Amino acid sequence: MEDIEIDEVATPELENPVLIEGLPGVGHVGKLAAEHLLEEFDGELVRRVYATEFPPQVSVDDEGVAELTCAEFHAVETDGADLLVLTGDHQAGSNAGHYKLTSTFLDVAEEFGAERAFALGGVPTGELVEEYTVLGAVSDASLVDDLEDAGVEFRADEPAGGIVGVSGLVLGLGGRRGFEAACLMGETSGYLVDPKSARAVLETLEAVLEFTLDYESLEDRAEEMEEVVGKIQEMQEGPAVPDDDLRYIG
Amino acid sequence: MEDIEIDEVATPELENPVLIEGLPGVGHVGKLAAEHLLEEFDGELVRRVYATEFPPQVSVDDEGVAELTCAEFHAVETDGADLLVLTGDHQAGSNAGHYKLTSTFLDVAEEFGAERAFALGGVPTGELVEEYTVLGAVSDASLVDDLEDAGVEFRADEPAGGIVGVSGLVLGLGGRRGFEAACLMGETSGYLVDPKSARAVLETLEAVLEFTLDYESLEDRAEEMEEVVGKIQEMQEGPAVPDDDLRYIG
Amino acid sequence: MEDIEIDEVATPELENPVLIEGLPGVGHVGKLAAEHLLEEFDGELVRRVYATEFPPQVSVDDEGVAELTCAEFHAVETDGADLLVLTGDHQAGSNAGHYKLTSTFLDVAEEFGAERAFALGGVPTGELVEEYTVLGAVSDASLVDDLEDAGVEFRADEPAGGIVGVSGLVLGLGGRRGFEAACLMGETSGYLVDPKSARAVLETLEAVLEFTLDYESLEDRAEEMEEVVGKIQEMQEGPAVPDDDLRYIG
Amino acid sequence: MEDIEIDEVATPELENPVLIEGLPGVGHVGKLAAEHLLEEFDGELVRRVYATEFPPQVSVDDEGVAELTCAEFHAVETDGADLLVLTGDHQAGSNAGHYKLTSTFLDVAEEFGAERAFALGGVPTGELVEEYTVLGAVSDASLVDDLEDAGVEFRADEPAGGIVGVSGLVLGLGGRRGFEAACLMGETSGYLVDPKSARAVLETLEAVLEFTLDYESLEDRAEEMEEVVGKIQEMQEGPAVPDDDLRYIG
Repeated sequence: MEDIEIDEVATPELENPVLIEGLPGVGHVGKLAAEHLLEEFDGELVRRVYATEFPPQVSVDDEGVAELTCAEFHAVETDGADLLVLTGDHQAGSNAGHYKLTSTFLDVAEEFGAERAFALGGVPTGELVEEYTVLGAVSDASLVDDLEDAGVEFRADEPAGGIVGVSGLVLGLGGRRGFEAACLMGETSGYLVDPKSARAVLETLEAVLEFTLDYESLEDRAEEMEEVVGKIQEMQEGPAVPDDDLRYIG
Repeated sequence: MEDIEIDEVATPELENPVLIEGLPGVGHVGKLAAEHLLEEFDGELVRRVYATEFPPQVSVDDEGVAELTCAEFHAVETDGADLLVLTGDHQAGSNAGHYKLTSTFLDVAEEFGAERAFALGGVPTGELVEEYTVLGAVSDASLVDDLEDAGVEFRADEPAGGIVGVSGLVLGLGGRRGFEAACLMGETSGYLVDPKSARAVLETLEAVLEFTLDYESLEDRAEEMEEVVGKIQEMQEGPAVPDDDLRYIG
Repeated sequence: MEDIEIDEVATPELENPVLIEGLPGVGHVGKLAAEHLLEEFDGELVRRVYATEFPPQVSVDDEGVAELTCAEFHAVETDGADLLVLTGDHQAGSNAGHYKLTSTFLDVAEEFGAERAFALGGVPTGELVEEYTVLGAVSDASLVDDLEDAGVEFRADEPAGGIVGVSGLVLGLGGRRGFEAACLMGETSGYLVDPKSARAVLETLEAVLEFTLDYESLEDRAEEMEEVVGKIQEMQEGPAVPDDDLRYIG
Repeated sequence: MEDIEIDEVATPELENPVLIEGLPGVGHVGKLAAEHLLEEFDGELVRRVYATEFPPQVSVDDEGVAELTCAEFHAVETDGADLLVLTGDHQAGSNAGHYKLTSTFLDVAEEFGAERAFALGGVPTGELVEEYTVLGAVSDASLVDDLEDAGVEFRADEPAGGIVGVSGLVLGLGGRRGFEAACLMGETSGYLVDPKSARAVLETLEAVLEFTLDYESLEDRAEEMEEVVGKIQEMQEGPAVPDDDLRYIG
């Protein structure tokens, strides 16, 4: 096997598609958001990317059929911009692997004519979030105004630790290649899978890319999560459960 | 030394041989099963695979002679199908190493004309197993029926964490190359070497590949393990031994 | 992306420039010292070095613009020698990465005509330092006398554990290429960011390279750190804080 | 820098030299033994091997001069066989690195005409050793008799965990290239640097390679270590020191 192998599943014509990256990360915000886009707009699978940097692993589907770990690109036509949505179950397993994979992802996006990219993710606040602010970072200062108009907040030198993983490199490597790249980070506790934060991120994306989303299924997941939080809180009022157990969920 | 070196020990003619992989893993189920096949059918060593991904290690035999860590292929003629049995003491030491090694293993299998592959292993239940179910996963849905007829169970989305290591990649990479690949996973506590689970796996293999095995030696090992379990239980009835000590054995 | 990419930002003529390396390390002594040089002498950015060995990370500046992790060379004209100052936020992530990166750094320095190199850093004493001695190590015994004249101490076989990371390799690899290389290590507790130790290192550099520095801004940082130390000492006089908390700061 | 660089310091003519490997390991037995050979027979440095697999580190000598981490070959003429002694301060940092380095070491040995190799090391017993047995392992069964005549013991399947690191690969890779290779492992507690075990290993080597060594300096080190052990035992008779502190020394 080559270090990276790309299956070309379909190559539809897209009009100035926008790369949307939603790999696993803090609160699974990016992944939830990207998957919601696929669900609502009936995305078409166009590429599978296999890499020896991914864990040596297959997942098993509901018929018992194994699928080798990969990242997937779906072409998504919305009522606004065309999207090229990147999802998957894993980030890379090493520093160099992150660079190599993100370069490949940007190659695929360029092949489809993409010149803009949004990396979706969460930014941990360490406490339960009441109001879901979306924090932004960009590859070029000229992109700030439009995003601020869409409700994205920019705060000097935040997030303090920078942005790591594929999302960070979509900005860093994408910017170096001439992509107009932005990272949209929904505030989230960091302890739980957070569909509400994913919604906040998608709402800013709606405003920027001029499409319209329905959020019913994401609402359902948010309600499930709230039940989980409720149960945890009940448990915590009991005697024996230590406070920090909360962080092991999600 | 090259990253991977293959010693061609012998190249007998085999008739549609089936690759059987049994490297170390949960409960050593796959390894026990593969070694039992070699013991019962007098396998012939055909290939040794050395790899810089393996630990830098030699084992020492009963005469004091060192053997460099490797994986071995044995040709095995049964009363049913011809087998190509892959065994060894180690998996790879990195993500990329697993992909590289499994690719090499599939190359060797193709060289002998294999088009089918079974990855043998265990699936941990976390508790002592009474009835030894064999769980299955396949590279293609068309393989499910025959395996179900042989008693293999398929459960939607199980094992939940997917299948990792060489076994997972025999399915994932093997399937991509056109192998008819299946993983047979014997249920096992996960805490002990489990010859009974290995037997359950071999019995389904007997049914599918139409050969007949004697299990006496595996029974002996199972009895030894039961004595071990008995002793552990006695010890646990004593005062000072913590419950979870069980998991450090095997 | 290549393993290492170099952006050529500017290529001013420098006269026998001296490479000054100040990457993060013990007490951030080297980094503080190098950054102080840039601040006081208005360095000009000449090269950015990107590497897949660096963390896959962007930092975000005060306008929300992301910058991909890199190391930077600044050309610095002083009233004495010309300098080529190497700074950054990260060392490499692996053994081989350190060698590869340092080789690249030395390539860049050679390109600008540098034949001398100073690696700046700290050496941990494990206790609060009263008098800031600067310990030296050199690529060639002929360099010792001049440095001793500038107040640098040489102690047989110290530091005991050798010098690790880019600083060590600037000596080791630099020496093998014919650089006159020295490491200047300010004594520092090892527990705190230490601007006073950085000043001690810079003062020896002033003497050797015949330039004059103002230390006001470094004094300010030293005072801030002293307030931090003061607060920690107060806290330690309270009942609940364990002694060794000190080491988690900075 | 290349992954591996070899400095050719000298290339004296040697007569059927025997490779003696003594890198750091259990009880530093191999390293002590190899260094004693260099000391007693006035070895001549012939090769330095640098590798990006070694830690990125320099050591500092008694004049403050830094030396880049490397392994060294010395040519040693004894009253018996000529030796090519391999010493150094580090093993490799990864699986693949061990294979690559050992291959290089064997290349150098072949270049000098070596066809025999002894890997020197210690085998941990977990308790203080009274009688210093030397355990053997060989690349070929034909080598056993001569070593047994020299007092080396061979025990079926020991050491149980095999032999790891460069010593193991001198046997494993050396044997595959046609070297007559043996590993001589002095029994040692595993908790302390053990000059007595090093002497036991050297005495068997004396018998096999027909040279004569003086052990005075090794005796001195053994006495120093015994004082250390004595102090530890005294401390252990005091109240506050836990038993297992012994293992953190050496």
